[in-house]
Amino acid sequence: MVHPFDPVSDKEIQLTSQLIKDAAKGPEKPHFIQIDRLDPPKKDMLKYLEAEKSGKSLPRIPRVTYVYYYLGLQFYKALVNVTYGHIITNQKQPKGVQGPLIAEDIEEIEKLATSHPIVKAEIAKLKLPSYVKVVCDPWMNGTDGVEDRLLIQCYMYLANAHHSESNHYSLPLKFSPVFECLTKEFVRMDYLPSGVDEACINDTEPWTEFPFVEYHPDLNGETIKPLKPLIVQQPEGPSFEVDGQKIEWQGWEFRVVPNCREGFAIYDIHFKGRSVIYRLSLCEMTVPYGDPRAPFHRKQAFDLGDAGFGATGNSLALGCDCLGVIKYMDCRRVNTAGESVLIPNTVCLHEQDGGLLYKHTNYRTGVPVIARRREFVVQTIATVANYEYMVNIIFDQAGEIRIHVRATGILSTMPLDRDVTVPWGTNVGPRVLASYHQHMLSFRIDPAVDGYENTVVFDDVVRMKKDPKLNPYNVGFVTERTVVDKPGYVEQSPFTNRSYKIINENKINPISKKPVAYKIMMPARQMLLAGEESYNNKRAQFATQQLWVTKYQDNELYAAGEFTNQSQTDTGLGVWAKRRENVRNDDPVVWATLGFTHVPRVEDFPVMPVEAHEISLVPFGFFDKNPALDVPQSSQSFNKSQYFPESSSKDSCCKSSL
Amino acid sequence: MVHPFDPVSDKEIQLTSQLIKDAAKGPEKPHFIQIDRLDPPKKDMLKYLEAEKSGKSLPRIPRVTYVYYYLGLQFYKALVNVTYGHIITNQKQPKGVQGPLIAEDIEEIEKLATSHPIVKAEIAKLKLPSYVKVVCDPWMNGTDGVEDRLLIQCYMYLANAHHSESNHYSLPLKFSPVFECLTKEFVRMDYLPSGVDEACINDTEPWTEFPFVEYHPDLNGETIKPLKPLIVQQPEGPSFEVDGQKIEWQGWEFRVVPNCREGFAIYDIHFKGRSVIYRLSLCEMTVPYGDPRAPFHRKQAFDLGDAGFGATGNSLALGCDCLGVIKYMDCRRVNTAGESVLIPNTVCLHEQDGGLLYKHTNYRTGVPVIARRREFVVQTIATVANYEYMVNIIFDQAGEIRIHVRATGILSTMPLDRDVTVPWGTNVGPRVLASYHQHMLSFRIDPAVDGYENTVVFDDVVRMKKDPKLNPYNVGFVTERTVVDKPGYVEQSPFTNRSYKIINENKINPISKKPVAYKIMMPARQMLLAGEESYNNKRAQFATQQLWVTKYQDNELYAAGEFTNQSQTDTGLGVWAKRRENVRNDDPVVWATLGFTHVPRVEDFPVMPVEAHEISLVPFGFFDKNPALDVPQSSQSFNKSQYFPESSSKDSCCKSSL
Repeated sequence: MVHPFDPVSDKEIQLTSQLIKDAAKGPEKPHFIQIDRLDPPKKDMLKYLEAEKSGKSLPRIPRVTYVYYYLGLQFYKALVNVTYGHIITNQKQPKGVQGPLIAEDIEEIEKLATSHPIVKAEIAKLKLPSYVKVVCDPWMNGTDGVEDRLLIQCYMYLANAHHSESNHYSLPLKFSPVFECLTKEFVRMDYLPSGVDEACINDTEPWTEFPFVEYHPDLNGETIKPLKPLIVQQPEGPSFEVDGQKIEWQGWEFRVVPNCREGFAIYDIHFKGRSVIYRLSLCEMTVPYGDPRAPFHRKQAFDLGDAGFGATGNSLALGCDCLGVIKYMDCRRVNTAGESVLIPNTVCLHEQDGGLLYKHTNYRTGVPVIARRREFVVQTIATVANYEYMVNIIFDQAGEIRIHVRATGILSTMPLDRDVTVPWGTNVGPRVLASYHQHMLSFRIDPAVDGYENTVVFDDVVRMKKDPKLNPYNVGFVTERTVVDKPGYVEQSPFTNRSYKIINENKINPISKKPVAYKIMMPARQMLLAGEESYNNKRAQFATQQLWVTKYQDNELYAAGEFTNQSQTDTGLGVWAKRRENVRNDDPVVWATLGFTHVPRVEDFPVMPVEAHEISLVPFGFFDKNPALDVPQSSQSFNKSQYFPESSSKDSCCKSSL
Repeated sequence: MVHPFDPVSDKEIQLTSQLIKDAAKGPEKPHFIQIDRLDPPKKDMLKYLEAEKSGKSLPRIPRVTYVYYYLGLQFYKALVNVTYGHIITNQKQPKGVQGPLIAEDIEEIEKLATSHPIVKAEIAKLKLPSYVKVVCDPWMNGTDGVEDRLLIQCYMYLANAHHSESNHYSLPLKFSPVFECLTKEFVRMDYLPSGVDEACINDTEPWTEFPFVEYHPDLNGETIKPLKPLIVQQPEGPSFEVDGQKIEWQGWEFRVVPNCREGFAIYDIHFKGRSVIYRLSLCEMTVPYGDPRAPFHRKQAFDLGDAGFGATGNSLALGCDCLGVIKYMDCRRVNTAGESVLIPNTVCLHEQDGGLLYKHTNYRTGVPVIARRREFVVQTIATVANYEYMVNIIFDQAGEIRIHVRATGILSTMPLDRDVTVPWGTNVGPRVLASYHQHMLSFRIDPAVDGYENTVVFDDVVRMKKDPKLNPYNVGFVTERTVVDKPGYVEQSPFTNRSYKIINENKINPISKKPVAYKIMMPARQMLLAGEESYNNKRAQFATQQLWVTKYQDNELYAAGEFTNQSQTDTGLGVWAKRRENVRNDDPVVWATLGFTHVPRVEDFPVMPVEAHEISLVPFGFFDKNPALDVPQSSQSFNKSQYFPESSSKDSCCKSSL
């Protein structure tokens, strides 16, 4: 039986698109952009989950899909009841609202960008040798004011024509055609600045050879270093069980559900029989660039809202992306014709060793108590044009949930004139600029800490006042708690060790005598740099603060709002966090901005070693003691390690000789 | 042949103690505390390393040991030339200067603390049943003013008499005898406050039973969770080579040298033939507590200076502390009689998988380039009474060095009266208080970024001013660099994304056109909370700021100074960082404070799941491209992963049915 949280199926996608096609009476055929399952209403789901837990008969919750499509240049959103097969609503969206980009359109534009006569004329001026080809990276337009057309900015590059994996990012060109995304009409040719200011624009001149900087092993000129295998074996199989989308592992129970916008969401997370989170996902990411020169000022991607992390998800391969015994899940998306497209293996699930979980050696007896941290990983990797993002949600045996993100892939590069450096970027190759930029990710945490009535608080650690009686030596420090009772954001305060917590005021821990809690651990970070009056800022309010709280409402899932492509303003947290509602001991939603400013290194090119960032959710007085005391002791009979072969150590016989 | 960086040998320890014994003419026998090798003078070593590199004949550098010992109550330090066998200097230390504590003294005090008649009389008042025993945790005294005697504060606990591994920290007692450490004389009995202020002190009354909170699997009452093996196999052996202390791995070369104070230091670190660091180590840690009530205000351990991370190092066990193929190194210490004591396997060295190092999927062809991050780990684990600290220095294939610290073990607990809570601590068990405290670690980085003339700088990322020509859209941001030319500290500034770098102004990267650099990545943290006028603060100036710079001088190795036990003042950075010297393009030393405020969780008891913190050192325009392009591609033929057995998935046949 299908579960209300189960992902959209091929049949549901096809039924949805068929109903929309049938409803489109005019001459234009629907041009589909996205179809996926709508989250069921939470009120209904809580009853469902309650019944599921207690083994009662399950209420029927109709399956509903949403669909984004265009008729001509008009953008529509509809909701479809796919259980009963009818359209619920079908709405023209206001002028200026655009849907995300879709692979089929991008592919067409990409081809056009090298075949359109105006571009071909420009390319001809380069007088390229036959071993060099032109490649196009289509970019969302971003915004610098009202633009009703859905535009694509094509950044152009050169690459080795004789190898499909040549790195075009090492040879950026100085012209950039712009196309209309739906009609595929040529709009204009932009000429790119390649010097210290916007005025440094050159005419297109014959290309003079300079080196390619390649990353593919066939081309990079490197001799591969010898490395011996390190194999993860699970001879008795994995320690997790899978039942549809439901996972059980070491006391954890949850449902992992791929979707095309977020990559995946995890629902109904319980540990040791107690609820922790109702829904957890990466819900948006924006990548604004700090290069002020037109047209680069419009480089601001919303990787989820403008593209989709499932839709751009990698098909993960056994033995490449993770080690051990791997369970895969697939994603489905719609194509522009309304057909379901399978993207296999976009989510992988597996165990890994996480080093030691705890150890104590009794120095009196020399006896250690020692447990290793086994971890359960839910991973997706998305390729958004040049960049790769790895999102790992990692569970451990002590009740911790770690959100672990790695950025890798290739820097989006721009041309530079010889010997030029600019203060907003790094020269990462000969005449190749990688501008400073930021990666601002929003993780949406819909908590259920021991129930659904939760409260968000933050604690500061502060010095006690000097007091001749109570603090005569001036060493004391205490915590001070502030309750968040209205929606909004919490300011960062690293120097008071500010920590955010989700508590349940109705459940008092018998040991600590304080409300049970989960703590959100994230280091203080620079938030969005773009000025308050800039579009980059107005469109991404979520990225201006690290932690936001709103009151739960159905369908408020994405931090920057539902439609981000060419948006002028944030229709997410920028709106919802302003509502004057109570969120204390109610149903708050927490939005955590994991942001990092990326000042590119030369070493980040031609492919970037991962930069990793984390948010941790840890039980804080949720249990009455360490919940991992039931983990087996770490032992050689279980782990089967080996001594280093000492004979290969050249002077092992004369160690410590004087 | 012995290398100048090689660790102290048994013979060197014995020769040193024999020379000191021979020199001690008086009636008192030397009471030894610590003997170890002194670092060779850097000036001499640079010549040695130069000769070593170029294959020239090696200059002879005499091996020198230092020795700490007492004659009666007088503390001495001597330096001994163990190559030629003579004492270089032998100095009485000023009144009040004390050496670190040593295991033999602690063991004697521990026994006395339950056998001394005054304590026995107090214990008798508890009227304990036979299944309960009394256990003592001896603590360094700390400081609250001039105290010439070397004192030990004995915190007392109850435990299950029938099991050696019973957790005494779950039953703290309310009296605390104080002994003189050298004479073993009883000094006084302290009675501990167990209520909201210092005045809440009760007479010792008969013990009334309340539950033990146990961590040992024999006692904790838990049913062990089933977990299937995850085995790391290296069928072709490890990828590293060992030659004495020298390690070679994936382009890295360095020497790992155990010592009794720091656990280990790593010398002469090169990557791909270029020098990066001359010496790297954890050089001090202080743990001040925030409980203001006497005598707890004196709880401030200096785990290296007061005890020693090698001296308290765990003998790591195969298959327990790490997985795969493991190389071990030993530590040596002196006992009070002057004999060498071997602590086997205090340092382990091995490889581990670190997930993906980089990936890029060409969306046009679907072809991924993908490399896994193999890591090389140097690990030590120290047990300083209740707490365990794991220090991992982790090297990767892209030139990164990660300092990864995990805190685990058991909270130092204090008694509480029934139903009492206090604002400076967490109730972690029935009537058990774990006070808030801080762990402030100092890592000493003696850099050699492409040579020994280095400069420390910091970069801030700041918004560009609005400018109608250059920044009309107000999205621009740039970096601003500040050079550290005098010793001192750098203030944290997370909201300008401040990053510290060690650069070599004499070597310009041909690509970036900027000096080659290594970047120090560490998140902003709360530093020492103890007030400026407190001893906790005066003794640990290093812990008040995150990053310090001094000019290199021989024998300036420890952030809080050489002698920390009962110190009144910091004789390390607090002195050296005030010297008005040039450190630009000279020989700077960087001291990075990795600090965290520990507000205990109930879940941290009775044994604490690891809390991990990191500092990363990454090449920043040091190479002319990603230095890891020579890493083999990640492939199934190499990694041998397995598919999840789908038959165990209960409804795998009806996935995505509508």
